Parts: sequence; C-alpha cells; structure tokens
Amino acid sequence: MIKVGIVGGTGYAGVELLRILARHPETLLTAITSRKEAGMHVAELFPSLRKSVDLRFVDPVAADLSRCDVVFFATPHGVAMEQGPRLVEAGVRVIDLAADFRLKDLVEWQKWYNMPHSCPRLAEEAVYGLPEMNREQIRRARVVGVPGCYATAIQLGFLPLVEAGIVDAGHLIADAKSGVSGAGRKAEVHTLFSEAADNFKAYGVAGHRHLAEIREGLRQVGRRDVNVIFIPHLTPMIRGIHATLYARLTQEADVQSLFEQRFAREPFVDVLPPGSQPDTRSVRGANQCRLALHRPGGRDTVVVLVVIDNLVKGASGQAVQCMNVMFGLPETTGLEMLALLP
Amino acid sequence: MIKVGIVGGTGYAGVELLRILARHPETLLTAITSRKEAGMHVAELFPSLRKSVDLRFVDPVAADLSRCDVVFFATPHGVAMEQGPRLVEAGVRVIDLAADFRLKDLVEWQKWYNMPHSCPRLAEEAVYGLPEMNREQIRRARVVGVPGCYATAIQLGFLPLVEAGIVDAGHLIADAKSGVSGAGRKAEVHTLFSEAADNFKAYGVAGHRHLAEIREGLRQVGRRDVNVIFIPHLTPMIRGIHATLYARLTQEADVQSLFEQRFAREPFVDVLPPGSQPDTRSVRGANQCRLALHRPGGRDTVVVLVVIDNLVKGASGQAVQCMNVMFGLPETTGLEMLALLP
Amino acid sequence: MIKVGIVGGTGYAGVELLRILARHPETLLTAITSRKEAGMHVAELFPSLRKSVDLRFVDPVAADLSRCDVVFFATPHGVAMEQGPRLVEAGVRVIDLAADFRLKDLVEWQKWYNMPHSCPRLAEEAVYGLPEMNREQIRRARVVGVPGCYATAIQLGFLPLVEAGIVDAGHLIADAKSGVSGAGRKAEVHTLFSEAADNFKAYGVAGHRHLAEIREGLRQVGRRDVNVIFIPHLTPMIRGIHATLYARLTQEADVQSLFEQRFAREPFVDVLPPGSQPDTRSVRGANQCRLALHRPGGRDTVVVLVVIDNLVKGASGQAVQCMNVMFGLPETTGLEMLALLP
Amino acid sequence: MIKVGIVGGTGYAGVELLRILARHPETLLTAITSRKEAGMHVAELFPSLRKSVDLRFVDPVAADLSRCDVVFFATPHGVAMEQGPRLVEAGVRVIDLAADFRLKDLVEWQKWYNMPHSCPRLAEEAVYGLPEMNREQIRRARVVGVPGCYATAIQLGFLPLVEAGIVDAGHLIADAKSGVSGAGRKAEVHTLFSEAADNFKAYGVAGHRHLAEIREGLRQVGRRDVNVIFIPHLTPMIRGIHATLYARLTQEADVQSLFEQRFAREPFVDVLPPGSQPDTRSVRGANQCRLALHRPGGRDTVVVLVVIDNLVKGASGQAVQCMNVMFGLPETTGLEMLALLP
Repeated sequence: MIKVGIVGGTGYAGVELLRILARHPETLLTAITSRKEAGMHVAELFPSLRKSVDLRFVDPVAADLSRCDVVFFATPHGVAMEQGPRLVEAGVRVIDLAADFRLKDLVEWQKWYNMPHSCPRLAEEAVYGLPEMNREQIRRARVVGVPGCYATAIQLGFLPLVEAGIVDAGHLIADAKSGVSGAGRKAEVHTLFSEAADNFKAYGVAGHRHLAEIREGLRQVGRRDVNVIFIPHLTPMIRGIHATLYARLTQEADVQSLFEQRFAREPFVDVLPPGSQPDTRSVRGANQCRLALHRPGGRDTVVVLVVIDNLVKGASGQAVQCMNVMFGLPETTGLEMLALLP
Repeated sequence: MIKVGIVGGTGYAGVELLRILARHPETLLTAITSRKEAGMHVAELFPSLRKSVDLRFVDPVAADLSRCDVVFFATPHGVAMEQGPRLVEAGVRVIDLAADFRLKDLVEWQKWYNMPHSCPRLAEEAVYGLPEMNREQIRRARVVGVPGCYATAIQLGFLPLVEAGIVDAGHLIADAKSGVSGAGRKAEVHTLFSEAADNFKAYGVAGHRHLAEIREGLRQVGRRDVNVIFIPHLTPMIRGIHATLYARLTQEADVQSLFEQRFAREPFVDVLPPGSQPDTRSVRGANQCRLALHRPGGRDTVVVLVVIDNLVKGASGQAVQCMNVMFGLPETTGLEMLALLP
Repeated sequence: MIKVGIVGGTGYAGVELLRILARHPETLLTAITSRKEAGMHVAELFPSLRKSVDLRFVDPVAADLSRCDVVFFATPHGVAMEQGPRLVEAGVRVIDLAADFRLKDLVEWQKWYNMPHSCPRLAEEAVYGLPEMNREQIRRARVVGVPGCYATAIQLGFLPLVEAGIVDAGHLIADAKSGVSGAGRKAEVHTLFSEAADNFKAYGVAGHRHLAEIREGLRQVGRRDVNVIFIPHLTPMIRGIHATLYARLTQEADVQSLFEQRFAREPFVDVLPPGSQPDTRSVRGANQCRLALHRPGGRDTVVVLVVIDNLVKGASGQAVQCMNVMFGLPETTGLEMLALLP
Repeated sequence: MIKVGIVGGTGYAGVELLRILARHPETLLTAITSRKEAGMHVAELFPSLRKSVDLRFVDPVAADLSRCDVVFFATPHGVAMEQGPRLVEAGVRVIDLAADFRLKDLVEWQKWYNMPHSCPRLAEEAVYGLPEMNREQIRRARVVGVPGCYATAIQLGFLPLVEAGIVDAGHLIADAKSGVSGAGRKAEVHTLFSEAADNFKAYGVAGHRHLAEIREGLRQVGRRDVNVIFIPHLTPMIRGIHATLYARLTQEADVQSLFEQRFAREPFVDVLPPGSQPDTRSVRGANQCRLALHRPGGRDTVVVLVVIDNLVKGASGQAVQCMNVMFGLPETTGLEMLALLP
C-alpha cells in the first residue's frame, strides 16, 4: 500500500482527492494537514465523507509527512515550493496541484504569481504532470506539477495539431468556459451564488495564468513558438470545462484520424465520432477528457470541442493518474468511476 | 419630488432600491453613502444601472442627509439606530430595511441581535412597516422598520387565520424556502455558487431572527399568544421565498373567502383561485405576494402557500410601498413593474 | 456472476442503474430493452457510459430475458405487471422500480394509477423493497417493488417514531422538496430548464401517489392508522430529496438515541449528530440516507430532516441494494461510491 | 393609442411582449390569438400577468386583427408569411419575431427553414428590424422581420469593424453562448432542467440558421463578402446571450473610439470602458446591448464581448423598439425598464 499524505485538504481539489483516494485500492491515507482546521474531523467539514474517511486535520507543524511515500499539495500557490524540498530529500515523492512546479521559465512564473520562486533547482527537475504528453518522465519524477484545469483541456485539444505541425501556431484561439468550482472554496463576492448563477461573463481577458503553461507545453511538443489567444469565461455550473478551440490549417489533413491515432491508447482521452458535440456532464466526476473535431463549412479552420471535469481530469484525478504512473500501477487504478448523469 | 437618501447601497437591498427609485416618478435620488466604496460611481459597481443612476457613493461623514425628505437604511443591523435619531430630529423620515426598528420587545431584540439597542425611544415610536397590517400608523410614522423577508411572507399567510381566531395559534408551522440572495452580498463560503447550487438544506433550525417579529406581529393581530415552528431552508435560486404554512382549524370556516375578503383591496396581495400552486417566478422582480389555500384530504389542517420576491415585497419594494404611504402617494406609484418570467 | 436484464433503460433510473451495475463486481449486464431506441448503442444515448457499457438496446420482443437471473424494470407504471409474471414463472427474479408492486391495497392502487392491476396474485406476493423495513422478506422475494423516492425518505424519517408509538400518527406532516430529475426524462413543459430553474413551487398538493405507499408502510410498522399531510415541492436542482418532517410527541422521549439505535446497523442510513442540518449534496450520487433530529424551542414537536439522492437511495441504488439482499451478497456490494461534492 | 394584436402569445417571446406592452404608455392590447389555448385567460397561463393583462386567447379564425394598427407574430417560422399579406393589405403593419422576413435571399431561406417561402414579394419589401443598422427603412416599413437573438448580438458586435473595413471579413469567429430560453417553450428532452442544468455544450456546429442573416446583414454594411465561423453553445441560465467575437485587424485602428463613435447616439447600445467584461445579468430583462473591446497581448486580434437578453433586445424588446420607430414614438418609450440584478 502506498502511504499518502495531503497538505491542505480543505478546498475543492482536496475533497475531490479524498473522494478518490478513499476508494483507491492501493493507497493508505496517512495524514492530512490544515492550519485552520487542525483537530477537526475531515467528515465534519465534508459530511459526504462520513464513515469513509476517518481522519482529523492535523497542524502542518505536528504532521510527520516524511514517512509518507507520496505527498499531494492541494494548497494555494507557493506552499509546495516551501515544504516540498525537505520531503523530496527525505525520499518522499511530491505531487503539487498548485502552480509551483508547472513552469520551467521562472521569470515567467514570477510575473504571473507575484513572488520569486524559492527553489529553482526543484522547479528545473520537476515534471509537468500531463501523462498524455510526459508519461515517461512522470514515471521517474520525484516532483510533479499537475497542470491547471484550463491548461489540461486546451493542451489536449491542440496537442495533435501542434505536434503534427499542420496549423498556424501563431494564431490559435482558445475560448474556454469553466464551472465556478474552478475558483476554489474561498469566500469571495464574485463567486457567490447570487452573483454567478443565471449569469455568464468573460474574465481574465487581459491575461490568465494558465496561458504561460499552455504556451510552454505546446512549444515543447511543436518545437516552435506558439501564440494562443485565451479567453476564459465563467458559466453557471459547478464542475466542468468546455474549451472551444480554433486553429487554421496550413495544409490539408484528416484531422479526425490524426486525433484518433494520437490518443488510441490513452485510457482518459476519448475522441468522439465525427459530428459529436460533447457536453460537460458526460465527464462530471470522471477522469476523462472527451473531444470532437469539426470543420465548419468545410473551410480551413478546425474547431476542437473539449470537455473535462475541472476537479478530476483538471486536478485531483489527474494527480492520482500521475501517482499511478509514478508507482508503476495500472494507470486507471482507482479512477474508473463513471460520470454522474444527470 | 421627494428627496431621497440611501445609507449603504452596496448590498442587494441597496441595488434593488436603486432599480426601483431610478424609475419612480416622484422621487429624486440625492445621495447614497458607503464607507467602503466612497468615490466610486454607482454604475461601476452595478453596470445594470449605467445611464440611469448618475451618482457616486459618498462617505457617510461627508454626506449631508439632513436635507433629504426620507432616508432609507440598507445597512447591516445596528446602523440605523445609531444614525437615525439625528435625522429624525432634523425632520427626515427614516425607513430601515434592517432589523433595528422591527421589535417592540427590546429584550428579545438584544437576544437575537447580540447588542443592546441604542435608542429605545425611537424603537418604541417606530412602526412595523407591513402596510397590510399597519397602514394607518405607517402614514404618520417618522420611523418605519421594514419587515424581514421571511416575516413578510409568513405573516401575510397566517394573518387572516390568526386575526379571525379560527386556528390553533399555539402550534403553527412555517416551512419556508428562500433563494440565496436573502443571505446578502457578503463574501461567505456557504453561499458560494459551488456550495449552494444543486443543493438544498435547512438552516437556522435552532432559531431564526425573524421568528421574533413574526410572533410579535401575529400576537398583535390575534390578541393572544402565538407559537410558530419556523424552519427556513436554502434553495438554489437567486430570488424568491416560498412559505408553506400549516395551521389546524379550531372551527369550520370557508378559508378561501376569508382570505379573498381580507385582501380584497390590497394591491400587493393576490389570493389565487382554489387549487392554485403559486411559483416564486410569478413574483420575480415584482412587489407582489401571491398565495393559495388548501385543505389536503379535506381534513382539519389548512395549508397556505405564499410566494414573494425576498428583495422586493420582502425588502426594497415594501420599503418604497411604505414611503408611498408615508408621503400620501398612490401606494402603487413606481411599483407597477411586472414579474420577469421566464 | 448474476446475469442482469434491464427493461426500459432510457430514463434517469435506467442510466443510473447502468452506472451502478457497470461497476458492480458480481453482475453481468446481459440485455437492455427499449422499444423506441432498439438498435442504438447505449453509449450513444448516454456518452457518459462510453467504453464502459458495450450493449445496444434491443426490442422487447426480441430480447430473451428469461435467461437472466434478475430483471429490473425501469419503465413507466404498468409495464412490470404485464411482463413480470412470465419472467417469474421462468425462475427470474423481478425488481420493479415503478409502482406496480408497491401496494397491497389494489383498490387504492387503481385509484392512483388509473388502471386496473393486471396481476393481483403477484402483487399480493411481492415485497416492498425497503430493506431497512423488510430485509428478511426481500431476501426470499421473487418480486420486489422498489419504493418511490419521496416514500423512501419520508418512511425512513418517520419509521422509528411510528414504530415506537410515541407520536400522534394521525397528524404527521411531510414537507418534501425534490430535484427535477424526479419527474423523469420526459419532454414536458413544466420541467423545462426555463420553467424550473430559478423557481420554486409546491405541486400535487391535492394528492400525490407516494402518499398511498407511505401510509401503507407506516401503518404496517405502527400497527395503527396513520395520516400524513404530504406537500411535495419542486426545487431547482437535478438530484436530491429533502424531507422536513413534523410529528407531535405523545410522550417524552430521547429521539436522538431512538434513531441512533434503530439504524445502528444500517449501512445506508446515517443519523447525524445533534444540531446537524444535512444537505442534499452530501448524498449526491451515493446510496445513503442522512437524517437529523430537532426539537425547536424544546417543545413537543419533533422535526426530522432527511436527505437522499432520489435516483440512488430513492431508486436505482435501492434496487441494487435489494438485489444484493436477494442474492446473498454483502449489502454494500457495488454501492460504495461516495457523494460527489461539490 | 396604438391598437396592438399578437398572434401566438404562448411562448417566451409572447409573454415577454405582453410584459412590455402591458406597461407601454402608448399601446392598447386588443387581441391575442392562440389555436391551442383559445378561451383561456392569458393570466391563467402566465400568473405573472394577473391583474395586468385582462385578455383571453382567441382562436386565430375568430380574431379580427385587421382593426389593429400593428400585429406582432410571436409564432413558429412560416406563420407570418401566411397570415401577414392579408393584414398588410388591410393597412396593418406587421412585425414578425420569427424568421419569415429576415432574409432577402429566399433560396438561402428555403435551405435553412425547409419550406418554400410563400410570399416572396413581401419578403422583398420587408425591412430587417435592427434599428442600429436600418432605422430609416424601419420607419417606413409595412413589414419588419425582427432579427434572431444571436444575430442581434453578433451583428452589433461586428458592425463597426466590418463597416469600417478594417478587419479580415473572410475569417470572423463568433463563439456565442445562449441561455436556455432561446430554445423556446417547447416540450423537448434536451432542454429539460435535468439535461441542461449544471452542463455546457456546443450545438449546431454544423450550421445554425442565424448564420444566414448574420452574413446577409454584415455583407450589406461591409459591401463585400463576409464569412463567419459561428459556434453556438447552450449555457445553464434562463436568459442572456454572450457573444465572444474574434476578428483580425488588417490595419491599425483605435477600436474603442470607433465603437464609441458608432454607437454614441444609440439608446440601446452601451460601449463599456476599456478593460470591461460585461456579464449577461447586467442586461437581464432590459432592452440593452452592452459590449467591450479587447486586444489580448496587444496583438492583431480584436476581441469583442457582447451581451444582450435574448428575449428583450434579442426578440420582444427589439420588436417594440421597431414599433416605436415605425409609429414615430420616442424610441425608448416603454423600454426603460432596468436590468434585474441580482
């Protein structure tokens, strides 16, 4: 059994990690830390876990995480880079669901996250946790930075096109829509029910943090510069991301086949039949990415429709998928739950 | 034109008051105060008011509200009782949308609001602003305490029964459901979209503040002791209260006629035909209370179904209705907007 | 492996049954019938099941269900009583999610379902599938009628009180609120998104079908006549039932202990600590019933707050729970999925 | 007073038209027809109109609409072209909210609406009812075809750019999101609450009817060929359209000024300050279009964010706006209601 620790499990990525790990057949939940809720029973905060998670939050100071095999950070940005190095030295593998280990370009990192990076060496070593792109490196990684939710959907959707070098990579457009849980479990006015329900808006148009990792990831696979116009929107649903991607072909191609072949052996990427229009609920609660390809009017623009659950394939599910890869388990272990529909 | 001031217009009752008053033909919006947003244009905070409300929030200290004819308090509890007395002395009439002037029993008040009342004399003089119950006193009032949203729906629904003395007033049950805007525009976790959407729960079962004013109001009309079990619930909609009221008849009665007669001349209470089941959207955005009467199985329990929009008849609309009464205007002035359906 | 057939799997109970059975370790999905969708791949209708359910709908006429060990009817009322007898004769056990086998009083049945019952003998033999009430009979049953969703929540909530004979059983009140999926996957105006969203209303106040089975069930355990005023409401969420139950004590009792003892060994009934207020999302997607007890004002009325997921413990989960009992499996087999929160 | 008739007022455009006209100071509602609901009181179908609309639906055959000054068609496509000609001959002006009079190219019309057009002469004469584009022609029109909801938002957003000839009109992208009321008040499975809530998806990717009128309108103002990739999406809210438009500049330009000047005198188009991100609720229930301009990364792509209420500026409000223009009234008459927020 893999001994697992969680740092900061009081947010949505945390509770989703608990939901998955509580039913994972090869892991043992050993400790979960929270400064604010130290002493409280996990199931008191999240009654959905009653009878299934029998742990209390412990103070980070008191927790001895160094006896874990792996520690997940479901914390705000900046925590994993502080606490991670000591764990890695102790032989613990680290999976960060925040942004600390997503970027190689730390100048860019500092620009978006408004703080200097405190352990550049580990950032250099860390692997970007998108198994469909970096499976082999994840296998051996001591530190994994799990991609952002938007970044997961957008990169999976552009990946085959950019990899094949058949689109104008300088003018990609990603019009993405997210459920409100993407903003986390923080008390803020703009994500109140009365503000976000029955409402739709764009936000972060001037620049969204995930843009940096999307560009870094796509540049790597495309081996050329990539520019993406990325417009995120807030849509009144709890979970789910729908990315509508636009790219202009620079040469003719059978895009449907290209995607089917690229993802043929991926358990968590599902290329839908031609003409499909995936809905976010088809992946609600499931570690799946479903996508469909279109060529409106038969013209030169490819439209890729991509859906994921932002808390599963866009966060905690993907983190467990990385863990499975790192520990040599079948990649689908503990991740076979089906989407909740309706 | 009635010169109007608003204290604290950054919450939901505030913006609703602005929506109504901006189209009220007999009022002139003179000043609106907010400590936090002083200097900001109202329409910057609420773009729905662009081109219609051309005012900036001013600091309470700088505002000269004493030149207003009437000042509305759309503030947290405890503000109107501090600032109200000075205004009243200056001849300004005060309409408080918070709880400061709702109760006569100040021991009870202190128990529920966790502070001593700072101007008992004005509390004694103040009129409870439910026009269907206290129209004549409101007409002459210097200070009006606008009822709570639940209290409006529940009192209107029980009023004819308790007034007529035909139900067991010691065992009334009010099972009430509120949209989330009732909790206000405060950053709190439990009213986040991701917490409150696709979810339903009871809250405040151990005791809800509105219970005090409901009992005080019904005792007054019933001239006897009244006990209400009041269970509020949070339902995933923005606006609206639905109260399902249960009372056991102590004598046979034609309840439908009783209600129709009691409210025959009320412009804002609509007794629906027998067999009706009002929905909250039929009053969304409108200053209306719709209600229907039932006798399930023909037995001795009367069920009253009551709907209001918590921000209109349950708050700002009722406040303007009180203002109309106080200034001798036709009671429906500025309150004729129809419900937004769908 | 238990060979399973499903009749009519195109509705919400059907797709939920598929979600559960596709992951049930002891069953083999053998056939699923649908007149309308015959020939269509199940995963084409429900993309959430892609890669997990590899079956096509077959025409009921062509399907040979007699080779199944058990057949679930997820059909409209009236189908199971037509097709069930032949299957039972062939040695197949039948679990009906509709109402055909819920009532013993067939005069009552005909009144509510507007048709004569076509196989009174099987109705007489059938067992009402609430394991917390009838576990032993279910074990040996050839035909099980799975309770209605409201009926499950309301009976579980009143059960200990009525069984103990400590409340006025002639004046029970059940104020229940259901998500919209309870109305099924039928094209109807009143359950359109634009009608049911941001809206709340009572319905069926004049009489709801589940009332008959609630009364029959509670009379059986209470061994006396029972009367319930049952007011169902439609609330804008997809899944979930919240029942708020009111009963007047006829003698003093420690209600919390009573419930804890009654349900101590039930894996799917969770009595929350005193003061709790369960929310429906704490059981979303899970086969659980959570409930809490209150005595507002310390008076003689007990308030029971009960939540279930109408499609799981209120339908398909309970059906599988019954199957587990019938086939001697551990009752929780395949039913250990945790609630999806948020 | 303008005598108004409505054909087919039982859908969402119909009830919205009633809400507006019931408070319009210069109109008199004379007749409303419905084959299906003939005889029923309007307020029985729509209780939100109780005490305000005192009319019954009449059978189309019995209605004498020729005595009206103007008749609105809030019907399915194909009705106005059948009944309109007779009315026009009788001197009645016709405003069609469906698509019968939107296109000049009737070959295109037949392709999208699957029927031959039955009165090409009137189609030729009819004016496309977008006042911001065709105000003068609307003034004199006998027949107006009110634009589709998407078409209104998308054309207003592209209009200044295409008119000025500064973008690559062959490669416009319109990523649009609509609330569910856009699908109308028809009983269909895919718009049920349980299907559309907590869900997001694209639809009509292969081709949406509004594309034809968008291209026809923009070609007219741009005097060149225009191609738009138009991807509509369904978002879980009742009202509102958010269009995110992408266009590549072919020459440098101050886009903010261009839009501000173009719409300076338009009462119903609101160009927001730089950096703004309009939300749909800022126009909920109001006859307004709000839009904002962006240049992400300072590159050559202009992003226009546009919001309207699909039932108001996207349908019934715009229809009344056209009527005001046609009858020489101030354009804002009866259209001054403010958005309902929250």
